[in-house]
Amino acid sequence: MSTTARSTNEYRELDAAHHLHPFSDMGSLNRQGSRVIVKGDGIYLWDSEGNKITDGMAGLWCVNIGYGRKDLAEVARQQMEDLAYYNTFFKTTHPRVVELSTLLAEVTQPGYQHVFYTNSGSESVDTVIRMVRQYWSIKGKPGKKTLISRWNGYHGSTIGGASLGGMTYMHEQGDLPIPGIAHIGQPWYLKEGRDGESEADFGLRAASWLEEKILEIGADKVAAFVGEPILGAGGVIIPPASYWPEIERICNKYDILLVADEVICGFGRTGDWFGHEHFGFRPHLFTIAKGLSSGYLPIGGVIIGDEVARTLIEGGDFNHGFTYSGHPVSAAVAHANVRALRDEGIVEQVKKDTGPYMQKRWREAFGGFEHVTDVRGVGLIQAFTWVKNKATREMFAGSDDVGTLCRDIFFKHNLIMRACGDSMVSAPPLIITRTEIDAMLSTAVECVEQTEKLLQERGLV
Amino acid sequence: MSTTARSTNEYRELDAAHHLHPFSDMGSLNRQGSRVIVKGDGIYLWDSEGNKITDGMAGLWCVNIGYGRKDLAEVARQQMEDLAYYNTFFKTTHPRVVELSTLLAEVTQPGYQHVFYTNSGSESVDTVIRMVRQYWSIKGKPGKKTLISRWNGYHGSTIGGASLGGMTYMHEQGDLPIPGIAHIGQPWYLKEGRDGESEADFGLRAASWLEEKILEIGADKVAAFVGEPILGAGGVIIPPASYWPEIERICNKYDILLVADEVICGFGRTGDWFGHEHFGFRPHLFTIAKGLSSGYLPIGGVIIGDEVARTLIEGGDFNHGFTYSGHPVSAAVAHANVRALRDEGIVEQVKKDTGPYMQKRWREAFGGFEHVTDVRGVGLIQAFTWVKNKATREMFAGSDDVGTLCRDIFFKHNLIMRACGDSMVSAPPLIITRTEIDAMLSTAVECVEQTEKLLQERGLV
Repeated sequence: MSTTARSTNEYRELDAAHHLHPFSDMGSLNRQGSRVIVKGDGIYLWDSEGNKITDGMAGLWCVNIGYGRKDLAEVARQQMEDLAYYNTFFKTTHPRVVELSTLLAEVTQPGYQHVFYTNSGSESVDTVIRMVRQYWSIKGKPGKKTLISRWNGYHGSTIGGASLGGMTYMHEQGDLPIPGIAHIGQPWYLKEGRDGESEADFGLRAASWLEEKILEIGADKVAAFVGEPILGAGGVIIPPASYWPEIERICNKYDILLVADEVICGFGRTGDWFGHEHFGFRPHLFTIAKGLSSGYLPIGGVIIGDEVARTLIEGGDFNHGFTYSGHPVSAAVAHANVRALRDEGIVEQVKKDTGPYMQKRWREAFGGFEHVTDVRGVGLIQAFTWVKNKATREMFAGSDDVGTLCRDIFFKHNLIMRACGDSMVSAPPLIITRTEIDAMLSTAVECVEQTEKLLQERGLV
Repeated sequence: MSTTARSTNEYRELDAAHHLHPFSDMGSLNRQGSRVIVKGDGIYLWDSEGNKITDGMAGLWCVNIGYGRKDLAEVARQQMEDLAYYNTFFKTTHPRVVELSTLLAEVTQPGYQHVFYTNSGSESVDTVIRMVRQYWSIKGKPGKKTLISRWNGYHGSTIGGASLGGMTYMHEQGDLPIPGIAHIGQPWYLKEGRDGESEADFGLRAASWLEEKILEIGADKVAAFVGEPILGAGGVIIPPASYWPEIERICNKYDILLVADEVICGFGRTGDWFGHEHFGFRPHLFTIAKGLSSGYLPIGGVIIGDEVARTLIEGGDFNHGFTYSGHPVSAAVAHANVRALRDEGIVEQVKKDTGPYMQKRWREAFGGFEHVTDVRGVGLIQAFTWVKNKATREMFAGSDDVGTLCRDIFFKHNLIMRACGDSMVSAPPLIITRTEIDAMLSTAVECVEQTEKLLQERGLV
């Protein structure tokens, strides 16, 4: 069956009749009709009406290598013919999972030699929760069970992941968080900084909230602190440089495992291979997904630092895992993807060329708007925030829905960016060129002008 | 890189150096070395030493269609070239997820028109937990939050899944179960039946444990009952025919959602498309994974009955989902797989021919052994249990490890079956032929003879 065997209307009707989308109001979406994406190539998508769309979000922060890589497709075909599936439960392994594990030990910093596989970022987070508790139990400290994370952090949608995440709209659905999870504030100067406080001072103060929480709970009850190096779905919140080293110091002081959720930052997003390298800290373990396969197939995992790995390996059975842990086809495609990101110099190019270029151009493009503030980013992850008053940092009311308004204008102009509250965020494929950055920003500026005009017309500013 | 570019020893060393396996004692496994599986075709696997292995477990209850289907590999390649990834979050959909959803509405019974996608059975179970609570919240009964399941049931390895499952060895690692989960006994006559009690009476009594638990908790606090039609990882526990209709009656009586975990039973394992069809009950929703793609790629989901779907659709935003929900490549391969299972008559053949043949031959093969009892099965899922004394139903001590002993003998004879405690279980690819069944059972009988001899030598019987 060809990719577009049906009309747009047929796809919409069948989609409404049979498919519940994630994170959606299905009644409203079904009345409106979904846009049908049929093809991808490079940084571009096409819909069933023939529109060419610039994907400023790399799918969902994942298509690092860009769409349409025929070599990856051929790797999938070959592996599926050879060995479409086998498990790694029954004292068995297979070449693809061995090769991927070996390669991951090469692209991570020294001291991260082991990986445990999952199918997604969510499952990686659940694995972290079970793994850090098992670690402390082996260490003879079974009381160390609580995990601390941040309000507005995103750690997936499983019961464990949604609990660890700090999204209250997720907690409200399903009686979350579960016990043994505690949250502290996010390191976002725009919202949490004090007038006159330097960013560096704010970073230290935001980190001190971790120490306060540890003392409140008792260090003998705390297993780990978990955080995204840059908060992604929370709106690309980039902590001050002073933040992560101080978090690391506090974790070490109280004998608490430091876990980075690298699902978004991993595999070159910041220009470094992993977000913790950019910020200069060493987590004891970290989650991976998305960029691991550039989204070409579902696969995730947890990279485990040597001391934690040694403890788990000599600690007897760890009763945890998934049917598709280390799936041969997913592992083969992830291996080809990571090798390409490295050997074709894609990550290096973000670090040395396109990342700095994007950040310069991004600030030039949006820095001058009256109601746009906190124009920020690093590598190829960037954002800005709509604000009522730049000087006083007065925000729009949530009910004004300014982010969604702006997002819909982008969408109408065939440019995909995401609204996280009133922050507009972008994370394009890492293969984006300077010329493509210029074109994308030129469209985006038009859209922001239109949004400001609309805000005036509606009397919101 | 070719599939076997390295020597067995190299693979083993790299595997030990970099890969933590699921559900494994890695210290012990690393000293012993993993078996390296390099190729699959039909019901057979090959290891890196050239041994041909009969896979009596279909991978991990999943490779329903058998290994080596070139047509599925070509579907993956084509889709990965066309559209390797796009999300279904941003008011967008794509042809592959629409086609799969439409096909699933065809192969399920009338009244199951909608599907929500995940990457695994575990994520499907977590989705159920969040979804049934959201359902009752929309219905104005937010107090209905508790889910009831069974001891010895298996529902995955996430925090939610491992909690809902009844495996105490999983609960012990990671402070589980979470609150809002309750367990009742399993419907296994061999272990729970009373002397002189008929299987039919036992089935009703086992179902009555649900009513007792509901009354203990309060029906206004219970959201759902969740169970595998046949308990899989618990050892292929097949409830008496009286059990499921009575469970259904009790759920309806107390206004409680009935959820089937069809991850193992689904897609033809019992000869029917889904386990609930075999047992004659109608769940309000049910999980799927494994057979959905025959394990060729990670994908899972929840099939939602019409009343529940209507409620969710008109209930506003459901803040749940996964980056790879409805992944285009996984959806394309699942679609080709399900269509083949149907259009090539693979499920029908299990129902009419190979299923009944396996069950007859399985009973003939193992019914006569002195220390083998409860020789059971339906379709192409079967088991028997090692027992010290058939008449008194006296079991071996757990520390005798009889199941593992037998499993290792099978493994040495290049036949894969699984030990769940002292139950030996089998679930081969659904394409297995009568001739292959005969050959598999002939080897299995030899292995069981050797096991009985070993038990005598060790003085265990």
